[in-house]
Amino acid sequence: MVSNKFFAVVAGVGPGTGRSVALRFSEFYPVVLLARRSESYNDVVAQINDAGGKAIGISADATDEASLASAFTSIKKEKGFENLQLVAAIYNVRPNSRPSRKPFLELKLEDLDISLNGNVRGLFNFAQSVLPQLLKSVDSSHLPPTLIVTGATASIRGSKLWSVIAAGKSAARILTQSLAREFGPAGVHVAHAIIDGGIDVPDAEHAARNDATPDGKLSPYAIAESYWNLHTQHKSAFTQEIDLRPFNEHF
Amino acid sequence: MVSNKFFAVVAGVGPGTGRSVALRFSEFYPVVLLARRSESYNDVVAQINDAGGKAIGISADATDEASLASAFTSIKKEKGFENLQLVAAIYNVRPNSRPSRKPFLELKLEDLDISLNGNVRGLFNFAQSVLPQLLKSVDSSHLPPTLIVTGATASIRGSKLWSVIAAGKSAARILTQSLAREFGPAGVHVAHAIIDGGIDVPDAEHAARNDATPDGKLSPYAIAESYWNLHTQHKSAFTQEIDLRPFNEHF
Amino acid sequence: MVSNKFFAVVAGVGPGTGRSVALRFSEFYPVVLLARRSESYNDVVAQINDAGGKAIGISADATDEASLASAFTSIKKEKGFENLQLVAAIYNVRPNSRPSRKPFLELKLEDLDISLNGNVRGLFNFAQSVLPQLLKSVDSSHLPPTLIVTGATASIRGSKLWSVIAAGKSAARILTQSLAREFGPAGVHVAHAIIDGGIDVPDAEHAARNDATPDGKLSPYAIAESYWNLHTQHKSAFTQEIDLRPFNEHF
Amino acid sequence: MVSNKFFAVVAGVGPGTGRSVALRFSEFYPVVLLARRSESYNDVVAQINDAGGKAIGISADATDEASLASAFTSIKKEKGFENLQLVAAIYNVRPNSRPSRKPFLELKLEDLDISLNGNVRGLFNFAQSVLPQLLKSVDSSHLPPTLIVTGATASIRGSKLWSVIAAGKSAARILTQSLAREFGPAGVHVAHAIIDGGIDVPDAEHAARNDATPDGKLSPYAIAESYWNLHTQHKSAFTQEIDLRPFNEHF
Repeated sequence: MVSNKFFAVVAGVGPGTGRSVALRFSEFYPVVLLARRSESYNDVVAQINDAGGKAIGISADATDEASLASAFTSIKKEKGFENLQLVAAIYNVRPNSRPSRKPFLELKLEDLDISLNGNVRGLFNFAQSVLPQLLKSVDSSHLPPTLIVTGATASIRGSKLWSVIAAGKSAARILTQSLAREFGPAGVHVAHAIIDGGIDVPDAEHAARNDATPDGKLSPYAIAESYWNLHTQHKSAFTQEIDLRPFNEHF
Repeated sequence: MVSNKFFAVVAGVGPGTGRSVALRFSEFYPVVLLARRSESYNDVVAQINDAGGKAIGISADATDEASLASAFTSIKKEKGFENLQLVAAIYNVRPNSRPSRKPFLELKLEDLDISLNGNVRGLFNFAQSVLPQLLKSVDSSHLPPTLIVTGATASIRGSKLWSVIAAGKSAARILTQSLAREFGPAGVHVAHAIIDGGIDVPDAEHAARNDATPDGKLSPYAIAESYWNLHTQHKSAFTQEIDLRPFNEHF
Repeated sequence: MVSNKFFAVVAGVGPGTGRSVALRFSEFYPVVLLARRSESYNDVVAQINDAGGKAIGISADATDEASLASAFTSIKKEKGFENLQLVAAIYNVRPNSRPSRKPFLELKLEDLDISLNGNVRGLFNFAQSVLPQLLKSVDSSHLPPTLIVTGATASIRGSKLWSVIAAGKSAARILTQSLAREFGPAGVHVAHAIIDGGIDVPDAEHAARNDATPDGKLSPYAIAESYWNLHTQHKSAFTQEIDLRPFNEHF
Repeated sequence: MVSNKFFAVVAGVGPGTGRSVALRFSEFYPVVLLARRSESYNDVVAQINDAGGKAIGISADATDEASLASAFTSIKKEKGFENLQLVAAIYNVRPNSRPSRKPFLELKLEDLDISLNGNVRGLFNFAQSVLPQLLKSVDSSHLPPTLIVTGATASIRGSKLWSVIAAGKSAARILTQSLAREFGPAGVHVAHAIIDGGIDVPDAEHAARNDATPDGKLSPYAIAESYWNLHTQHKSAFTQEIDLRPFNEHF
């Protein structure tokens, strides 16, 4: 039986982290999945509802203020979500096309913009939408309201050829850090996760969560478990940043 | 019913983190508590055994190779521990006297040595004792064998007046990082926790774990919960380092 | 007598760092100053030419690809610059209006865009313009061709209320780091400077360079000296990042 | 003509950085070279004196408080040094035997101690000896009195197999950082240099300073130049940490 008071929202749903995080949080909360295209969330929405949970999908573009605002307005009209308050928000959006990993002089300004749009501007819009809602849940929720942002190795390192990806990812990381410093004292837990390695997707639907991953890719279920653990941290011991990598990853 | 195959060891037990970590891990494993003085562990050993768990305390000085080796030898002779394998080891030792926080020119070389002994040399000895044991448990344990080291703000920052403490803490952090890179690929999870804030000790014995901490000190139970979550991470998604701080801590 | 083979370009000229860097580099090279408005560079261009150096100013907006391309084309038509090669480029551009330092929920997306434009997109365009020119000078210049980017405390820290400034500054830092890794091996020195403190501007035109700064603000002449020292580093010992702060700055 | 008011001291002199730093600083100051064995400094002392500079060598072990104290006492009795004040101190000591780079479980506690002794305890003693002297020169020296500590890649990274070296180096770095925060406001410039790469030693005695280094090793002369530039920084713009690496170093 999921919460009848709070819900969670996951922005950016594909076959990997976003889907697994939605599944994990759906064990406790009704979940809203946001993605640009409905194909991205239809399956997992059905999977959650079939399993007795509650989920809806909304097509929205986080990089577009109006689109995102409209999405949050429409949540309140969805059956079963009318009176729910937001208690967890995960930003897992990827740029709308893969930013180029190539020699700097072959890049176009558009490549940079794609990275900044998806990684930074979308996060900015999303944070502006969810933080006022999370603040409202501080007093009523047992677990501290939480905003988690998915990062990558490039969040802390400008590797050769990764210039525009790293620019976007590092900006998102520092923006998240700034939000943690501003909203932590108000009771909202803001955390950043550095995913350092390839993610094992698409994963078999019935795979046991703790199956070995012989090739050393991150299980998205394992990522989701750590996100859930961030959400359940006591307010006296918040983690601002975790790294997550396969046991055999070179780092 | 605790494991009849694996045990955990906690080095450095006082009224704070060490005690709470021992309590948390005792829910699943028999636990060995190491401290220089038996007064440090007697109460919590009794508390665990009274609650139906299994615990023993051994007086040992981690900074003394022989003392530590003797402690590990004696574990194997303890009733109920004869055939157990080590699956989790936590290094939470403090220097045997509080290293001085004072102007650099008022410090003595002894102040530095106290910090290096407790923070670095003790960890070195402890890691040399536990890593061979943890390696032996890799294939048989469902959860990856784990070594966790307790750090502090000084682990990453040489603040004014904290010179000798920071020297010891930063050395321990980097040593731990090096071990993570060497033993992760062999299946052992090595993690470091930066405790950034004051710890709420002594805590009331019956305090509920999620009680609010109005004054903003870290609940040792909350720290223990995050240590347990590190231990239960899937091997495809190990965290090498977490920070833990009260929601309202300035950082 | 300044170089008759190489020139330097400084993008972003105001009363502080840009002006002082132009003056310092003008002791050895003809200098091109780029700024959005001619008022920003007229005085220092005159000062350099009056002192027997060679300088020109060009109005350009680094955030506009076409404007920047046009600026670099026009340099080649300037008397005395026809045959010069670029050997040093400094990116010191500030966003075209001060990004707001205020509570996150009072910010607009435009505030973020102002920061990303000036700090990241302008740098991207500038780097794309200057790096091909710097590469051409690798074999002929005694001193390694150099690109230096001015950063700030916010480049490495997302402080409370500094979210959008930090997002732009950190992205510029990591972009610069990525360029260092790509262009270093080709012989171009790419460096980033973290200016951690207030800058002492406007400074008296005739102030001796080593005047005491009783109030603890960075002398822009001192910054310029460190930039010059970066440019003159031997290719076997490049610095990728320096911090610069007043002796009495809290950090 | 070297200074008749101030002198510099270099602790740790071999064929690389220490020798070159002594040569560079000897252009302006009488220089004292400290090393465990006189063979380490005899040649460079002669070279400086032959070239018209002034230098003495003293056999001392920085890890031994008494030996170091005795060395500083004896400086005051040396002809020409009786009335000089200390204005620059460089700590470049290596552990007295190369700490082992090998699998952690093959290391002995002695390996750790060798690293801690040379990297941390020696620095502690050296800093306690020189800081009171540097403080006395704050008001009379044109250039801010300076303490520079030589670090390495291991100062910021615990690589696999480098555990004990990294432990010592990281502790020295954080200790230096703490000193910078304490003594900067008093006017003493404390800086740390991360040497990231192999050093080109032994170098030909008459090699031109800017000779190309085709194999990508750091020229010790180039390191010395950057140390000198640190010493000459204006007190309004101190650098606390620089990295130095060959143009083609992978990082």
